[in-house]
Amino acid sequence: MKRLILALIVLLAGVLPARAIDIQTIDVPGVGTAWLVENHSLPIIAIQAAFRDAGTAQDPQAKEGTATFVAGLLNEGAGDMDAAAFQQRLEELAIEMSFSAERDESFAFMRTLTENRNEAFRLLGLALTRPRFDADAIERVRKQLFAAVAQAEQTPSAVAAKRWYAAAFAGHPYARPKEGDAASLKAITRDDLSAFAASHFARGSLVIAIVGDVTPEEAKALMAGAFGALPEKATPTPVAEVKASPPAGIEVVARPIPQSTIVFGHAGIKRDDPDWYAALVMNYTLGGGGFSSRLVNEVREKRGLAYYVYTIFAPFDHAGIMLGSVGTQNERAAESMAIIGTEITKLRDQGATEAELALAKKYLTGSYPLSFASSGKIAGELVALQLDGFAPDFVAKRNAYIEAVTLADVNRVAKRLLAPENLHWVVVGAPDGVTSTVPAKK
Amino acid sequence: MKRLILALIVLLAGVLPARAIDIQTIDVPGVGTAWLVENHSLPIIAIQAAFRDAGTAQDPQAKEGTATFVAGLLNEGAGDMDAAAFQQRLEELAIEMSFSAERDESFAFMRTLTENRNEAFRLLGLALTRPRFDADAIERVRKQLFAAVAQAEQTPSAVAAKRWYAAAFAGHPYARPKEGDAASLKAITRDDLSAFAASHFARGSLVIAIVGDVTPEEAKALMAGAFGALPEKATPTPVAEVKASPPAGIEVVARPIPQSTIVFGHAGIKRDDPDWYAALVMNYTLGGGGFSSRLVNEVREKRGLAYYVYTIFAPFDHAGIMLGSVGTQNERAAESMAIIGTEITKLRDQGATEAELALAKKYLTGSYPLSFASSGKIAGELVALQLDGFAPDFVAKRNAYIEAVTLADVNRVAKRLLAPENLHWVVVGAPDGVTSTVPAKK
Repeated sequence: MKRLILALIVLLAGVLPARAIDIQTIDVPGVGTAWLVENHSLPIIAIQAAFRDAGTAQDPQAKEGTATFVAGLLNEGAGDMDAAAFQQRLEELAIEMSFSAERDESFAFMRTLTENRNEAFRLLGLALTRPRFDADAIERVRKQLFAAVAQAEQTPSAVAAKRWYAAAFAGHPYARPKEGDAASLKAITRDDLSAFAASHFARGSLVIAIVGDVTPEEAKALMAGAFGALPEKATPTPVAEVKASPPAGIEVVARPIPQSTIVFGHAGIKRDDPDWYAALVMNYTLGGGGFSSRLVNEVREKRGLAYYVYTIFAPFDHAGIMLGSVGTQNERAAESMAIIGTEITKLRDQGATEAELALAKKYLTGSYPLSFASSGKIAGELVALQLDGFAPDFVAKRNAYIEAVTLADVNRVAKRLLAPENLHWVVVGAPDGVTSTVPAKK
Repeated sequence: MKRLILALIVLLAGVLPARAIDIQTIDVPGVGTAWLVENHSLPIIAIQAAFRDAGTAQDPQAKEGTATFVAGLLNEGAGDMDAAAFQQRLEELAIEMSFSAERDESFAFMRTLTENRNEAFRLLGLALTRPRFDADAIERVRKQLFAAVAQAEQTPSAVAAKRWYAAAFAGHPYARPKEGDAASLKAITRDDLSAFAASHFARGSLVIAIVGDVTPEEAKALMAGAFGALPEKATPTPVAEVKASPPAGIEVVARPIPQSTIVFGHAGIKRDDPDWYAALVMNYTLGGGGFSSRLVNEVREKRGLAYYVYTIFAPFDHAGIMLGSVGTQNERAAESMAIIGTEITKLRDQGATEAELALAKKYLTGSYPLSFASSGKIAGELVALQLDGFAPDFVAKRNAYIEAVTLADVNRVAKRLLAPENLHWVVVGAPDGVTSTVPAKK
């Protein structure tokens, strides 16, 4: 067991007060390495686990929604307990257990009172290694997924995002809706679900963070019990590297509603790109600063055109994107879009100011401790860091990476990464004077 | 300053391990009493504040939505800072600050890094004592509220709840939608907003909990600075006591959607009712146990009729309600409703079992520590306890109140409180064979 004491105060004097997050890495026999943060102030243990290469990009062709379907079934019965028995046991012991699937990974979260830790980890292990996929549970969850898909079809932001991904990643698994659609959900069989779990949940793909009222020795035993019975290696389908390349132009999805919900974006960068921190700082100035970005100032504050406007750089395992969104009245959609285009062009061509750089750094470094404000947040953050390939000492170094970004860096990545002429806009609503210039992707 | 060490272990051996939540009550000069939980493990301070008698029930006639509108404007500029300047300052310092209005109270939540505490509390005080209500901010927030009302009108659960409250509290402020409607929002002027803030935000109405990296002396100074400039007394409009009395029967809100969202309920009890804990235990068996209630077993598990089904007893300052909800396919709505009615009748007439009582107690006592799982949750829980009139030692006593409930108590309150023949059902969707039996309330 390595033990790393991250005395943030030493490295980041002035940014953080005298407090340290002590991340231990522990070797769990037969399972692998996990990150642990001990906190005995409350009788609660939280664990977040992720399986790499087990997300919705792994859904078989014409069976979109499989990973999401599996996640929905993992707490619907395991081992010799059917759904009712399993959930009653969780409830009796006040154990929270949930599963979800994102594009690249599947996630498990569990939170338990210390006193119930043995049973809680046993149940988590059962859910992952011996899910039942009972026929009645499958049909119940299938109906819930149908309902969720129908609901998403009525939700402008969900429609806009779905269309944007379809356009940006045409032909690649990232293009497909994470929840599938009515036809693909109907096509998924019990065998599909079992096969997905068996081929994707393995020790070799597992990433774990455990936070709370537990010692390293206890944590090792609990995790060995929960995860030791998983197969050694997963057999995921290879996912190709891809560049987000939606057609430049506008796709209007007509809906008889008074507001337009707009999603726009183009290619971005992956997390390991050397320009990642410069892009983060640059994007803060563009549209990432909650209330102090150029887009918010120009679109929302000065002109009152929009309810919200933002941009993010989002990294996936096999691609990166720059994505933004704005919500506005139909009659102001065209003007909002024009100003967003102008601001992106201005930042690319003329760069940012020293004052903007200072503000961005101040926020991005100062807000970092809030990522660690609760056990659940800590566990989530530490799993994300592992998925991105970092060591525990990243937490202490991270703000220095931000501080090292220069104005020249920001202006260089603005030129490298912003391409207003390449933006693909999806507009859901009845926008005045805005018409489609590119066809929708199926 | 009184200091109460709540050694839960002593009172609740076996339920909680050796951990104590140390709630201090501190007298803030010129402000009043606040509850404090010190936790120096992270450099973060969270504060939750509530103003009694400052909720949406205080909205002036034909100006429904006023309290919500005010809450939406409090971080849109204060003192000599306009909205952009105020929000930029919050962002620079990574301060989270939000405001909301419920039926009885208005709430403020703030979270800050320790190093920025002085400025954070100053800004919170400015927002509450010197909100600007600038014309452009008012119009921006008004548009956001229009959008939210339009969105709620498309959301079946929001429509169902709104109709149910309208029916249950006809003629009383609780009947009115918390967010107002398009007409009432249009009618609200700057003077209405200023008048609401001036007459409802006062030291005499204030309830505070502060949690985190702060000493009692520091907390006193911070709170005196933030709240000292508030007027001494509020001048709320009296709100009459009321009994929820919706007409027994069914109200169908026709919508061309494949699922029906159903809300049902009748009168309940207030928080200070001597039967509160017995009702809590009884409701766990009926529909309050997430996965182990009779309704879940009969409607969801055995028959697969619904995606979810639950009941709650909700207390307001001037009324109590029993409310439930179920989501189902249109063709199964009628059967779901029939079974819910049957189960409520059975519990009332035949009572619960010892096994159900034991399960309910085990869950309700065992899950209580999860209410204190993060600084924000602790602050919220402690404000709720104060609003309900409890002393800090309630936290240590609460589980004993649950344990004291007998099967005779449960069966008595089931007879007293359950009245399936009085249920008012609102069904939003296209339910097969379900028709309105009572007219909709306006």
